[in-house]
Amino acid sequence: MYYHNLKFGIIGGGQLGKMLIQACPDFNLHPSVIDPDEDAPCRPHTHDFVKGNFTDFDTLYQFGKDKNLLTIEIENINVAALEKLEREGVKVFPQPSVIKIIQDKRLQKQFFKKHQIPSSDFVLINSKEEVKHYAHLFPVFQKMGKSGYDGRGVQAIRNVADIDKAFEGESLLEQEIKFQKELSVIVARNMDGEVAVYPVIEMVFHPEQNLVEFLFAPAELNSSIALEAQQLAVQVIEKLGMVGLLAVEMFLTPEGKLLVNEVAPRPHNSGHQTIRANYTSQYEQHLRAILNLPLGSTLQYKPAAMLNLLGEPGYNGIAHYEGIEKAMSITGVFPFLYGKKYTKPFRKMGHITLVEDTVEALKIKANYIKELVKVKA
Amino acid sequence: MYYHNLKFGIIGGGQLGKMLIQACPDFNLHPSVIDPDEDAPCRPHTHDFVKGNFTDFDTLYQFGKDKNLLTIEIENINVAALEKLEREGVKVFPQPSVIKIIQDKRLQKQFFKKHQIPSSDFVLINSKEEVKHYAHLFPVFQKMGKSGYDGRGVQAIRNVADIDKAFEGESLLEQEIKFQKELSVIVARNMDGEVAVYPVIEMVFHPEQNLVEFLFAPAELNSSIALEAQQLAVQVIEKLGMVGLLAVEMFLTPEGKLLVNEVAPRPHNSGHQTIRANYTSQYEQHLRAILNLPLGSTLQYKPAAMLNLLGEPGYNGIAHYEGIEKAMSITGVFPFLYGKKYTKPFRKMGHITLVEDTVEALKIKANYIKELVKVKA
Repeated sequence: MYYHNLKFGIIGGGQLGKMLIQACPDFNLHPSVIDPDEDAPCRPHTHDFVKGNFTDFDTLYQFGKDKNLLTIEIENINVAALEKLEREGVKVFPQPSVIKIIQDKRLQKQFFKKHQIPSSDFVLINSKEEVKHYAHLFPVFQKMGKSGYDGRGVQAIRNVADIDKAFEGESLLEQEIKFQKELSVIVARNMDGEVAVYPVIEMVFHPEQNLVEFLFAPAELNSSIALEAQQLAVQVIEKLGMVGLLAVEMFLTPEGKLLVNEVAPRPHNSGHQTIRANYTSQYEQHLRAILNLPLGSTLQYKPAAMLNLLGEPGYNGIAHYEGIEKAMSITGVFPFLYGKKYTKPFRKMGHITLVEDTVEALKIKANYIKELVKVKA
Repeated sequence: MYYHNLKFGIIGGGQLGKMLIQACPDFNLHPSVIDPDEDAPCRPHTHDFVKGNFTDFDTLYQFGKDKNLLTIEIENINVAALEKLEREGVKVFPQPSVIKIIQDKRLQKQFFKKHQIPSSDFVLINSKEEVKHYAHLFPVFQKMGKSGYDGRGVQAIRNVADIDKAFEGESLLEQEIKFQKELSVIVARNMDGEVAVYPVIEMVFHPEQNLVEFLFAPAELNSSIALEAQQLAVQVIEKLGMVGLLAVEMFLTPEGKLLVNEVAPRPHNSGHQTIRANYTSQYEQHLRAILNLPLGSTLQYKPAAMLNLLGEPGYNGIAHYEGIEKAMSITGVFPFLYGKKYTKPFRKMGHITLVEDTVEALKIKANYIKELVKVKA
C-alpha cells in the first residue's frame, strides 16, 4: 500500500486541506493541491500548488490526469471532470457519484428520503415564484441546491413578509426543526467496506452567524441516543457506498428523535479536536480510508472542546490574535491557525482545541478561553 | 508572536525535520529547509528546499541571512556561520554557543564536569598513540570529539588487543558504565526561562547496532528516581542557558545512580511517541520554545512505546513494509514513515508508536509488532 511515489492530489486549498497535508508525511504522501486563491492556506505547505478554478472542467481535469489518487476538502467542485478521471483509472475518493449527490442539497434530501434516513420534511421548488404556494409550511428554511456553504445559500423564511427575500432558482424548502441539540457524527469507510465511527459531537452555533462557535466531544447524551446517532451515521455512509470520511450533522428533537440535517464527504469542522483528543485524527482516518488501509481506533483520550477563532466584528486587516499567549499558558490549550493574513468579521481564522479531565472543567475552560482570545486587526 | 510572514529556516532535512515541519502550520509557520541530500525526507514537505551542505560556512550563511529565525534538526552543522548570523540579528535557537558545546563530545564532557553534572569519568586524548597509556581504565568507549552520530565515531576498546582499531585524532576515552537502564528525559526552555520537562523515557538498544530499538514512556522507575532524572535534565538545560528542546540521555547504574551520557539540542528519537501519547508533542514544544510562547503541558495520556523501523539485514532496495497493514488493524498502532525510498540494513526507515491502557499490555503489543513488521526490499 505504501507507494513511495504515489501521485496524490487534494482538491481545495483551505484549512481542511492544510490539516490533511499535515497528516500526509506519516504515510509517505506529499500531495499536490489545487485552489483558485493563490493565498490559500495550503499554499506554503505543499511543494506543488496549482492555482486554478476547480469548478472548471478543463482546469480540474488537467490537475487530475497525472495523479493516481485524488481527494477533496470542499464539495463545490467540477464532478464531471472527476467522473472522466475516474473512468480513465484515477482513484477518486470520495467517489464522484457520491459528491454529486452531496453537493446538491436537493439530491441529498431525495437520497435520504429514498433510503429512509430520518430527515426533516421538504419540498423541491424551481423558482422564487413558487415559495408563496408553501406558506402553510412556514416557518421554513430555503436552501439552494448547489453552492450553499457555511451559511451561504441558506435562509429562513418565517412568514409571508419574508417571501420577498427568497432566492431565485432551484432550491428546496425544509420545515424548520425544533431541536434540543445539534450533533455531528464522523464516520469513515475504506474500500474493503470497513467502517469506523467517532464519538458523537455536540455543536453550538453562533446565535446570528450560521457558524459553529463551540463543539464538545463527546456530546452529553444518554448512551442509547449516542449509539443511535452513531448507527445512523454508519447507515448513511453504507447507503452511499462511500469511501473516505463523512460528517453526518443531525438534530436531536425535543422528543428525542434524531433527524439528519446535512452530510459532508470530507474532514469536517466538527472533527478538528480529534487531532489532540482521539487515538486517530479525522485527517489520518481519511487517509487510511482512501488508501484502503485498516481504519484507526476512534477512542477518545479525554473530553475535548473546539472553539472557532472567528474574525471579531468591526475589524478588518492583518490579523492579531489577542490573548492567545495567555490562553496557551493553560494546560491542554492548543491553537491551530489557518495561515490567513487578513481578518474580517466572522472569517474562520483558526480554532483552539481544549482538553480536560472532566466535562464540567472543560465547559468552564471553553467559556473562559472564548472571552480571552479575540481575532482583531 | 504570530508573525504571518516569519522567515523560518530548519537546518537539516531528515525525519526529525519532517516531523517538525508537520507541527509548523498550526503556528502559521512554513519553514525553508537546507540539506545536502536532494532526496532528504523533508524535501517534498516544504515549498522551499535548498540543496546545500550545512557544514560549509558560506552555504549555511547564505541560507540563513534572509531568515528571521533558524533552528536545527542535526548538530553537525557550521557553527561559525550561525554565530555570524546571530550577530547580524537572526534569532538562532538553540543558540550557536550551545550547539558548539554539544557538537563536540569533548567540550560536552568538560561542560558536565565544570557544572557538576554527574557523568562517567573520562580523559581527553589527541591521538591514537595515547590510547595505550590508559589501558588501566579499560574497558572504555572511545568517542571522537566531533561527527559522532548514531553510533558513528564511537567504539568500545575492551582490552589491549583492541587498541589497534582505535580512531586517530582528538577524542575522549570514557569508562564503560554498568547500567540497569538507559533513560532519556526531554526538556524544553523558552526565552523567558520557562522550563517544561517530559516524563522519563526508557530506551532499549539493539544488541549490536548502537540504535534505539524500543522505547517505553514513561520508564518503569520508582518515583524518586524519575523525579531526580527530570530534575537533572532541568539542571542541564538551565546550566546551558539553552532555548529550545534538549534530550538528556542518562544511565541508571545498578546502585541507582544517574549519570548523564549525552545530550542533543533538538527534537529527539526518544520523543517521537509524544506526537500521539502526550498533550504537547516534542515538535510543537520545540516551536513554542523557540517562538518564546508559553510551553505546553507534557502530561501523558496513556503508556506508550516506540519501535524503530530499521532496514532488515540482508535487504537493499526499494522499501517494502511487510506486515504493516496487519499492525495498523490493531488499536493504538500508528506508523510514521520517513519517506525514504531505499532500505538498507539498519537504516532508520520509520517508526511505530504504540499506545495502551497498561504497561503490561504495551510490552506484549510492542514485542508482537516488532516480530510482525519488517522493512524489506
